[in-house]
Amino acid sequence: MDFKKYIRDIKDFPRQGIVFKDITLLLKDAEALKKVTESLFEMVKDVKIDKVVGMESRGFFFAPLLAHKLNAGFVPVRKAGKLPADTISETYSLEYGEDVLEIHLDSIKKGDKVLIHDDVLATGGTANAVCKLIERLGGEIVQCNFLIELDFLKGKGKLNGYAVKSLLHY
Amino acid sequence: MDFKKYIRDIKDFPRQGIVFKDITLLLKDAEALKKVTESLFEMVKDVKIDKVVGMESRGFFFAPLLAHKLNAGFVPVRKAGKLPADTISETYSLEYGEDVLEIHLDSIKKGDKVLIHDDVLATGGTANAVCKLIERLGGEIVQCNFLIELDFLKGKGKLNGYAVKSLLHY
Repeated sequence: MDFKKYIRDIKDFPRQGIVFKDITLLLKDAEALKKVTESLFEMVKDVKIDKVVGMESRGFFFAPLLAHKLNAGFVPVRKAGKLPADTISETYSLEYGEDVLEIHLDSIKKGDKVLIHDDVLATGGTANAVCKLIERLGGEIVQCNFLIELDFLKGKGKLNGYAVKSLLHY
Repeated sequence: MDFKKYIRDIKDFPRQGIVFKDITLLLKDAEALKKVTESLFEMVKDVKIDKVVGMESRGFFFAPLLAHKLNAGFVPVRKAGKLPADTISETYSLEYGEDVLEIHLDSIKKGDKVLIHDDVLATGGTANAVCKLIERLGGEIVQCNFLIELDFLKGKGKLNGYAVKSLLHY
């Protein structure tokens, strides 16, 4: 199945000069949703995973699905102030300014084998911050798994030493 | 399985006087995640569904999972400005002030059979706004499906005429 047919470029979103990869056509098609889930699962299926960590908000689309298929638990990483219990946080740089990501203190146990999933790997700042959060809790990062990788932004360089797998490359 | 054991009360979150139902202990437990997904699916499995609509952000945890199991597509409803293509929107009242929800114009086809899913049914304002969005696009709401219903807030009253099913009641 040619998944790229279901991915639409939106110019100047969320701001001027950015070409946004819109995955909603892929999500709304029952067959494409099934097949893309299967393909993401294929990238990691032979590895033991305890927790799948997904990033707010679009990482939430596939991370629980992958957790379910892998017989693992799901852990959300969220923007500051959104998680209700005790958290640890990481601040990371954006193109303009900074942002903060949080994870629950009790979400990962020491030695947990962790799969990180997000929809898009762009500059790698978010994924790098998530790796730090997981390692601070004693988790072992088995793979960073993305639906889409924007190769020209070289985000993989910020994930040096981790296994990075992306289903679609641009 | 007693799912309520995995749901934790957080006092005064997100603000003073609110007792928040935290579902992250349920999500992070592989077996509980599997069984709760199965139970949500059981509530709707004998009905033909074309699209599962989930609300940002916690509705995204189970809506794609349900879509996958039902052989349906998944459609996100998001806060204002988050969806990249053409949208329609609904404004709804909150305890203090108003909020806006959006859906992509091309997400639902006329006659689509739609399952709405969110994690919690509280006052019903969000779910009511989502019903309006779906009906404006010509969709037929088959069921409003929730993980948790806070009975004392009487949100069901705002969903009069729709089939409402919730797995856990408080």
